[in-house]
Amino acid sequence: MGEKINLHDKFKKVAEHWSPKVVAEMNDYQFKLAKIKGEFIWHDHKETDEVFIVIKGSMKIKFRDGEVNLTEGEMYVVPSGTDHKPYAEKECQIMLVEPRGVVNTGDKTSELTSANDIWI
Amino acid sequence: MGEKINLHDKFKKVAEHWSPKVVAEMNDYQFKLAKIKGEFIWHDHKETDEVFIVIKGSMKIKFRDGEVNLTEGEMYVVPSGTDHKPYAEKECQIMLVEPRGVVNTGDKTSELTSANDIWI
Repeated sequence: MGEKINLHDKFKKVAEHWSPKVVAEMNDYQFKLAKIKGEFIWHDHKETDEVFIVIKGSMKIKFRDGEVNLTEGEMYVVPSGTDHKPYAEKECQIMLVEPRGVVNTGDKTSELTSANDIWI
Repeated sequence: MGEKINLHDKFKKVAEHWSPKVVAEMNDYQFKLAKIKGEFIWHDHKETDEVFIVIKGSMKIKFRDGEVNLTEGEMYVVPSGTDHKPYAEKECQIMLVEPRGVVNTGDKTSELTSANDIWI
């Protein structure tokens, strides 16, 4: 029997912003938690869709043709190959779902590019 | 640009218990919402892990060698091929994540077997 995952407890272990940490794996997909604040960079993920679920707070995802506001209990699927730029005015807690191996900044490299596959 | 998904609003559209409804798709994976109450049947999913996330209320997953209690904000990954039996004393709202095509009762057929791939 495995361990249950308490998202609230796991978030206590997340220190930096924009640095997704893995909390669970299902087949070859990972569930990652991140605290975000401020502006991320424009990027896309050519090979996969990416799910955002807001656990606490609110955030925005900017697209080339508009933007979507997400608050606690809302989710969004960013289609593969779609330029997007997450943004949060105040700190926001999110869960990401995507295949193992996805880098947070896509094929861009930036000071916000985070080490991958770090479990908490 | 796609639509955001508000889990609270979507749950209003879920009537029966034990009948997962699809709210989002990421690659070939689906996010499903279900209201559960009472005892489900023993079953497994030979070909895939299955993720349970409790959105509201609390539930139990029984295994052959124990059980796990999950409450709001907690998640659990049931490994492929693992017999399990979900249970909720009071109505509980959950999100399931699994590949498209997974049937709720696995390879068992029961009066609780639900039509698959129904979107709300």
